[in-house]
Amino acid sequence: MAAAAPHSLLLQKPNPGTAAFTNPLPLTPTAHLATKPLRPLSIKCAATTHQIQDPPHAAQPRPQDRVFNFAAGPATLPENVLLRAQSELYNWRGCGMSVMEMSHRGKEFSSIIQKAESDLRALLEIPADYAVLFLQGGATSQFAAVPLNLCSPDDPVDYIVTGSWGDKAFKEAQKYCKPNLIWSGKSEKYTKIPSFGDLQQNPEAKYLHICANETIHGVEFKDYPVPKNKGGILVADMSSNFCSKPVDVSKFGIIYAGAQKNVGPSGVTIVIVRKDLLGNAQGITPVMFDYKIHADNNSLYNTPPCYGIYMCGLVFEDLLEQGGLREVEQKNQRKAEILYRAIDESKGFYRCPVEKSVRSLMNVPFTLEKSELEAEFIKEVAKEKMVQLKGHRSVGGMRASIYNAMPLAGVEKLVAFMKDFQARNA
Amino acid sequence: MAAAAPHSLLLQKPNPGTAAFTNPLPLTPTAHLATKPLRPLSIKCAATTHQIQDPPHAAQPRPQDRVFNFAAGPATLPENVLLRAQSELYNWRGCGMSVMEMSHRGKEFSSIIQKAESDLRALLEIPADYAVLFLQGGATSQFAAVPLNLCSPDDPVDYIVTGSWGDKAFKEAQKYCKPNLIWSGKSEKYTKIPSFGDLQQNPEAKYLHICANETIHGVEFKDYPVPKNKGGILVADMSSNFCSKPVDVSKFGIIYAGAQKNVGPSGVTIVIVRKDLLGNAQGITPVMFDYKIHADNNSLYNTPPCYGIYMCGLVFEDLLEQGGLREVEQKNQRKAEILYRAIDESKGFYRCPVEKSVRSLMNVPFTLEKSELEAEFIKEVAKEKMVQLKGHRSVGGMRASIYNAMPLAGVEKLVAFMKDFQARNA
Repeated sequence: MAAAAPHSLLLQKPNPGTAAFTNPLPLTPTAHLATKPLRPLSIKCAATTHQIQDPPHAAQPRPQDRVFNFAAGPATLPENVLLRAQSELYNWRGCGMSVMEMSHRGKEFSSIIQKAESDLRALLEIPADYAVLFLQGGATSQFAAVPLNLCSPDDPVDYIVTGSWGDKAFKEAQKYCKPNLIWSGKSEKYTKIPSFGDLQQNPEAKYLHICANETIHGVEFKDYPVPKNKGGILVADMSSNFCSKPVDVSKFGIIYAGAQKNVGPSGVTIVIVRKDLLGNAQGITPVMFDYKIHADNNSLYNTPPCYGIYMCGLVFEDLLEQGGLREVEQKNQRKAEILYRAIDESKGFYRCPVEKSVRSLMNVPFTLEKSELEAEFIKEVAKEKMVQLKGHRSVGGMRASIYNAMPLAGVEKLVAFMKDFQARNA
Repeated sequence: MAAAAPHSLLLQKPNPGTAAFTNPLPLTPTAHLATKPLRPLSIKCAATTHQIQDPPHAAQPRPQDRVFNFAAGPATLPENVLLRAQSELYNWRGCGMSVMEMSHRGKEFSSIIQKAESDLRALLEIPADYAVLFLQGGATSQFAAVPLNLCSPDDPVDYIVTGSWGDKAFKEAQKYCKPNLIWSGKSEKYTKIPSFGDLQQNPEAKYLHICANETIHGVEFKDYPVPKNKGGILVADMSSNFCSKPVDVSKFGIIYAGAQKNVGPSGVTIVIVRKDLLGNAQGITPVMFDYKIHADNNSLYNTPPCYGIYMCGLVFEDLLEQGGLREVEQKNQRKAEILYRAIDESKGFYRCPVEKSVRSLMNVPFTLEKSELEAEFIKEVAKEKMVQLKGHRSVGGMRASIYNAMPLAGVEKLVAFMKDFQARNA
């Protein structure tokens, strides 16, 4: 493909304009869920020609119907999980209802949320003295919930800010306690992680907060600072690398994550909290932000986001079937390795600003030396059914998000395109 | 059926125990989405024998695979909406992605949320000076968000409490302002709505709050009190009767509703707020509870519950295709009428405690004169594939929730069963 002329790469445009989205069916559908003939698909890459086998059954329906979606979240989900969800959407395992219709207190949904929690506990080896909560409102809600649950208004807390999300968490905390910014990467455009030894932690702080992976800037903690506060409490926003690799949960007081990157659709927020931290929420804490209320009610104090929790459960099951998070981490390392190598070996045609030792395995931001070509890059890559590669509006350039569910074939196809684009534009 | 012996009513048990829910398929599915032969279904009722034609295409898949789900929420959804959602779950209208995978800032999802809002505006004839917000966290989050957005900590507000949900809203408001309970139905076990003329409203109150329909107690406002406060602000929790009938939105400052009763799955909360009320949130208001931030960002300040919003959009489309909310209200009145009549004509065998003039069209609580038979009633009715009829644990007895998506045939089948059960147990 590297030698191919660009016109030979043209495929059907993957994203029709909004105008094309008018419903093709009457809402009382006449079309049925047709199955398609099995047909293996081969994708030619610069390096090799091989069958897509990720996931193994991908030929049904044919994967060429799918785009490779590099969105930062909501993001691509495992094809087998989507097919399972589709097959049981109308009638879940013969119970006569969709999961979307089930009472959250009925035995069917109880079995779903209990299995989701136990599978997540198995994946992350979550100790028994940690509660697992399935909540709503995204990490943005947790930016307030963490200080509201752990602090009094005058308590000091420490924040390390390595990107936009950590900065938002720091600013929200100012409403509920006295956060201290002990390190910020802003002056270096969020391309680094601090050396832990140099951090001036406050021993009186109620917790130390980090964002484990910055989705926009592509900076990821590879190890974690040891909290020097009396409680020894480290709090991490893991939204964009949750379940992408093993984590020693016992090092954390609280881990929280929006589901819509690696483990499910948007609308579910998972909070893993050490039980001894429950029960100290400020008086102004909304019921929905009080961890103890949700822990005491097994996430069923009020109606949870049932369908999203069901989808997360299917993903957890898939991650276990893949062999668990060590296996998943190796796949993620391999994908990131070939993409960063393509950038670093481009003789400066492509550039990633992030310090090599802390580059994210999940979000890979890069720019073109000839920035005037970036719009053309986005346009051409979309014609190849590789979508959502535009960088965040705050940083520009490109960003490839390669979460758990992005197949190796997707990254190989992107790398092949990048080499071809460079050959034609160097 | 009224004359039939109970054993002749036995059908396959609709709800297998949790143990039966272990996955029948490997997660890399080999089963395809088989279509089933068309076959009309006839259900014998005491009154009549007729074809189920609600929805018209219900023979595909065969509706006998479905139970009639009387759950209070999450609740039954329109079959045609579920079939549409299933048909496009894996690949939404040829874009190569599931709706669950779409960037919330991409043009595909933009078209989905914009259509959902415009269809909702058409259904409820929402004036242009009202913002429509698609949020998370359920009505329980709004119990805090309403006072946080409308009051200072010392401001008085008025609450009318006609059931458990109004009571929860009143208690949560105590954290953020000075709520005054101007009427409570608690001493009469929440079976009444007050006469508006007798209410002692505080002219200094920032708003007057009601719960338009109490899901647990089955008490529904048929008209609305005129707020006597200076701003003339009436706030209503419409979670369990939202879009069940026309509403004059201009009479309200804020209408809020969890979606999981009449318009979608759980995990989406809709807030309709008069724009002049935006921008006065208390300093301690979490970003996620600040209406102005969500209004200024068209509900995309952070990642919204995308799939739930998509499902709500399909339901709004279906309600418009049914002819709008006047048509929907007539169907709901008809369903409620035959159920309440069956109760009232049972010579006291069945009893509904709610004052007739304010009985809910959505939630019908009833008890048996012989309360020792209630467990048997629940057991037998479940064998008839009519599920979730147990009353809320706080009130006992039975409750039939008959939201928009409950077909007339479901209510007719329940009434037929009730008459048969009475004939066998009177």
